[in-house]
Amino acid sequence: MERHHFEEELQTLRQRLLQMGAMVEERVHRAVKSLVNRRPEEAERVVSSDAEVNELQIDIDARCLRLLALQQPAASDLRLITSTMKINDDLERVGDQAVNIAENVLVLLPQPPLKPLIDIPRMAEIAERMTRDALDAFVRRDAELARDVLRRDDEVDDLKDQVFRELLTYMMADPGTIQRALSLILISRHLERIADHATNIAEGVVFFVEAKDVRHHHENGPGSTGAP
Amino acid sequence: MERHHFEEELQTLRQRLLQMGAMVEERVHRAVKSLVNRRPEEAERVVSSDAEVNELQIDIDARCLRLLALQQPAASDLRLITSTMKINDDLERVGDQAVNIAENVLVLLPQPPLKPLIDIPRMAEIAERMTRDALDAFVRRDAELARDVLRRDDEVDDLKDQVFRELLTYMMADPGTIQRALSLILISRHLERIADHATNIAEGVVFFVEAKDVRHHHENGPGSTGAP
Repeated sequence: MERHHFEEELQTLRQRLLQMGAMVEERVHRAVKSLVNRRPEEAERVVSSDAEVNELQIDIDARCLRLLALQQPAASDLRLITSTMKINDDLERVGDQAVNIAENVLVLLPQPPLKPLIDIPRMAEIAERMTRDALDAFVRRDAELARDVLRRDDEVDDLKDQVFRELLTYMMADPGTIQRALSLILISRHLERIADHATNIAEGVVFFVEAKDVRHHHENGPGSTGAP
Repeated sequence: MERHHFEEELQTLRQRLLQMGAMVEERVHRAVKSLVNRRPEEAERVVSSDAEVNELQIDIDARCLRLLALQQPAASDLRLITSTMKINDDLERVGDQAVNIAENVLVLLPQPPLKPLIDIPRMAEIAERMTRDALDAFVRRDAELARDVLRRDDEVDDLKDQVFRELLTYMMADPGTIQRALSLILISRHLERIADHATNIAEGVVFFVEAKDVRHHHENGPGSTGAP
């Protein structure tokens, strides 16, 4: 493969990865919106369209393997392609979480609303934005933006704890709320996992841009030696 | 890098990956055992020793990147190395789940036991075995064993649903059980995620051995075209 053609292939790969990111972010958004607006048909669309996400994941993975095999790229191109493979896996799992959220919405909607929803839409907004920014940081090789994504993870964890405590109070006061409260707690856990995937992506971006491993110790954290 | 040296490096990589698998499996086992035997100090050890898992993950990832960069391997070696990178990521997340389980155990143990535990240790046993077998299937290039792992995922899902239904009954009958029941439900969800990681690994093994993509449609499933 000549260099010019290789660059074109990398360009296509980048477009596909951005498409994958937009696709899963849209599904998370729609799943949570279907809960807020009480529209089960929207949640059903999220569940039924998961195959599209999976097909795009397989397509991106196959492109990466082909580029690695045909081009045998060195150094920075190599890291670009292996990073794309990892980000692609994380994005596919974000898509899985959108399906999990939509399934819980379908359990919730036949029942009357438990309470006005404030923290869950807020969690969704932050997690979606983290996913989008982590991917933008990768495409623009922007380690600062990636670090900013890492910092936002705590905010999502705090909201998750707040949702848990509040819903626990509801359940204790009235066992008739238990099932609905449980579904909302599970939705908040799925949103937390989306933020975790965005965090994984952002850690990979810092590594990719600075060839420095920030995984597992964020900024100034204790622990690993920072290999390689 | 000459071929002989490359083979030695691959051998070391395989040993490290097996070590990683044994390490995270042992942590899952210890986390659940600490719950059954009501020994919080064991759960604390799982939480405090997570850095070891993370360091080994980073070491394996760095070895893979180095082999890809220096050797520029083609075809089957390339797939071996990229598969190792993906499996390594899944194993690290299994380790994270062991920590999540241990954290819930530490919330549970100061309170009196809610009920004799049967399904949760059973789920743990299946999920641990799936993880071990998926990794063995990779090392032995045994697609049959990998397919066997895929089939066991439904059993874990059924147990998870059973745990949920049973604990819901407890919560409805006595709000004093809500907090403990919630922790047990979350533990069962973490075990389900471990089985999901084993499933991811097993799907990768079938792809690796047969160069055929079984992801997202298992056996005879509908959906993707089976690229590449």
